[in-house]
Amino acid sequence: MTSSAFRPGPLNLITDVPGLTVGHVTDEVVRSGATVLRTDGFWAAAVDVRGGGPGTRETEALAPENLVGKAHAIALAGGSVFGLAVADGVVAALSLEGQGLRLKPGSPAIPVVPAAVLHDLGNGGDKAWGLEPPYRRWGLEAVATAAREFALGAVGAGRGAMAGHLPGGIGSASLDLGDGLVVGALVAANPIGSVYMPDGQTFWAWPFEIAGEFGGCRPAAQGPVVDPMPDASRLASLGRAQSGANTTLAVVACNADLTTAECKRLAMMAQDGIARAVRPAHTPFDGDTVFALASGAHHLGDARAVQLGRLGSAAADCLARAIARAVHTAAQGA
Amino acid sequence: MTSSAFRPGPLNLITDVPGLTVGHVTDEVVRSGATVLRTDGFWAAAVDVRGGGPGTRETEALAPENLVGKAHAIALAGGSVFGLAVADGVVAALSLEGQGLRLKPGSPAIPVVPAAVLHDLGNGGDKAWGLEPPYRRWGLEAVATAAREFALGAVGAGRGAMAGHLPGGIGSASLDLGDGLVVGALVAANPIGSVYMPDGQTFWAWPFEIAGEFGGCRPAAQGPVVDPMPDASRLASLGRAQSGANTTLAVVACNADLTTAECKRLAMMAQDGIARAVRPAHTPFDGDTVFALASGAHHLGDARAVQLGRLGSAAADCLARAIARAVHTAAQGA
Repeated sequence: MTSSAFRPGPLNLITDVPGLTVGHVTDEVVRSGATVLRTDGFWAAAVDVRGGGPGTRETEALAPENLVGKAHAIALAGGSVFGLAVADGVVAALSLEGQGLRLKPGSPAIPVVPAAVLHDLGNGGDKAWGLEPPYRRWGLEAVATAAREFALGAVGAGRGAMAGHLPGGIGSASLDLGDGLVVGALVAANPIGSVYMPDGQTFWAWPFEIAGEFGGCRPAAQGPVVDPMPDASRLASLGRAQSGANTTLAVVACNADLTTAECKRLAMMAQDGIARAVRPAHTPFDGDTVFALASGAHHLGDARAVQLGRLGSAAADCLARAIARAVHTAAQGA
Repeated sequence: MTSSAFRPGPLNLITDVPGLTVGHVTDEVVRSGATVLRTDGFWAAAVDVRGGGPGTRETEALAPENLVGKAHAIALAGGSVFGLAVADGVVAALSLEGQGLRLKPGSPAIPVVPAAVLHDLGNGGDKAWGLEPPYRRWGLEAVATAAREFALGAVGAGRGAMAGHLPGGIGSASLDLGDGLVVGALVAANPIGSVYMPDGQTFWAWPFEIAGEFGGCRPAAQGPVVDPMPDASRLASLGRAQSGANTTLAVVACNADLTTAECKRLAMMAQDGIARAVRPAHTPFDGDTVFALASGAHHLGDARAVQLGRLGSAAADCLARAIARAVHTAAQGA
């Protein structure tokens, strides 16, 4: 199969995977926000946490050996530990719609909404929320705004994000594998590492760029990349190197009929997209977390594990592209 | 600190970390072999397994929550499950030397020798060993040959290795961080993925190459990398896509005073070196396993986690370079 068989979906967003919608809430006063990825049902889901300072909720429910292994939505937010309340709002809103597990007639529907947060508390926004952090409310609102088209850059959960010393944000990308399979990635990119090579302009993710989706810059001749703590990373600024203060939050999704365990492998392989788009990645200070979702619409058939490897490779590429698109878009808006 | 402060150690091998030696046994009839990395004592150690088909031994002893968390040596071998016997030989040889834990006067010394294997059973070598696979004996022999200088390419545990459709092998690289810290990597590279970009000649690891250590090829203009299952990977050949049949076995080491848990983070970050040097990586068919060792000679002092992030970043770079050096050297010998 030649390369020409592969192209982004029509939106080049994770919502090219049929059944997904995304809603943002962005607050310019707080300089923070929330992003909710909704499924159209109850999708197989898993998570892989590789950062040293993660902030998460409902991740244990997604372990392959546990009972649930599925999710109705994934919630991402700024706000560090306060942001975890975003899922309270999403859960309440989905339940009122009737989305969720029904364990007993008449009892509320129970939505499964894993969540992860990034740290943006020190970005100068108004965080004087006292006993009423806004994240729960933003979760409610984000559910209502979810749609197939959504903005990238300094919006939603990525409003307060940084990528190294530059503005980070929300990114997304998709790949149509040409045989009915579609893969997509959504990211809130706030890594401590740099998304740029030492020339300061070429994205590490450049080999995976499609049709200039993040500016088209290519590497010129340069010396070897040897400094493990490059100036363009915040790892070089000791004051910024706080556990949980830096994070790449991601969701990858596909339309295959993956099990929870297969979703786990999809998430694990997708972490390589972070490795390829950010250097350094997975440091003690990052909270790098990748969720994986599968709709089940497309039956993989024979050679499932081969197809899973293919989907995982595509998910890694989409995630690398999404990270670069996040920073590229945030820079244009800045 | 400028890039010029960073250079490989005098050998550009993992043995630039003081106290380490490496011994190979290579058998051209069996087309397989073993590689033993010896420490000069009992070093803090951890392991991170990310492949879908690993073959390992004594990895649980290295879990941060368990008792031991240290190792006297690491053994790598071909031979798939048969190769795990390499550690029997290493354990016996080290114990006879008096290396190991002494739980009771007069009882044998108990060496801790974690091991991992790669699959080379189908490479055409003579595997008719019946009830006497050679790996235990090779473990004994490899201990005796351990030295600071050692060969790269199609030798030792890498004798039967492949990298995609090309010969794989043993690789190594080191980085002197200029402040007393030294990091190194050793790899037996047998990945299902390709180490080359789609042009078939530029290593994915090219940005990290120092002084032409793997040929100096740089990427020319090319189309986007979009096929998640490139022809140059064995993932495209369904017959080769067998669990455990493909693996990148690696050890990263440094001379810092890391705890077992810190070694675990070092190993986790080093996995990014595989992600950057091989595409796809961490598939269901790979047994990707990274051990990490720390001698304890150099006290990290303040900001330990920052230094750990720096060491992990350097370990990832060294591992990416080691993978490219493995294939580059194996190709020259082929």
